[in-house]
Amino acid sequence: MTVRFYTVVIDCQNPKTLAEWWAKALGWQIVYEAEDEVVAAVDDDTYPALVFVPVAEAKSGKNRLHIDLAPDDRDAEVARLESLGATRVDVGQRAENTWIVLADPEGNEFCVLSAREGGV
Amino acid sequence: MTVRFYTVVIDCQNPKTLAEWWAKALGWQIVYEAEDEVVAAVDDDTYPALVFVPVAEAKSGKNRLHIDLAPDDRDAEVARLESLGATRVDVGQRAENTWIVLADPEGNEFCVLSAREGGV
Repeated sequence: MTVRFYTVVIDCQNPKTLAEWWAKALGWQIVYEAEDEVVAAVDDDTYPALVFVPVAEAKSGKNRLHIDLAPDDRDAEVARLESLGATRVDVGQRAENTWIVLADPEGNEFCVLSAREGGV
Repeated sequence: MTVRFYTVVIDCQNPKTLAEWWAKALGWQIVYEAEDEVVAAVDDDTYPALVFVPVAEAKSGKNRLHIDLAPDDRDAEVARLESLGATRVDVGQRAENTWIVLADPEGNEFCVLSAREGGV
């Protein structure tokens, strides 16, 4: 049995724009670009990558899957991501939570954790 | 700037059950388990991991994010995953697509790609 966790695929309105946003957010590169998908990854050999594919339907409701980012400095990273166009969103998180909930330019929620916390 | 793609978080009804399902699907381990999250990963040091968290709301509609798996042998892996309880789902894929669309026991869509194809 061999199966690898290969990519996370993100349905979106503007694959190229959103892939470039995430590449900038993560310090990654665009490693593949076509009409029907744009792939961002650390490099050609490192997986999982993020694959952005166009869909007709707009996002509705909170995503069932989301990405968590681990920063060296949470607040500095949140500020940097906000400067790139991320926005703070309320998904019911509590004031005592150690992570910050943001959304990318298409509204996809993601979290910036504290610098290594218990659990994950 | 240092931020890492750390985990994919999956909202679910039964974190422990679903985490164990994905661990079996991927040949991974449960590396952390608590009331409010269960983490599956290759091992303690390999990221990104999959984090399963309980939510009140049921899944509705197609997920905006999904996971793609790269197999050595697509059909053998699909058969194995079906034997674990994955089901085939129709999200509008076409007959000529080289990937198979499955859903995990909570209905989360994921794809099993052909053995390395162009693009991703």
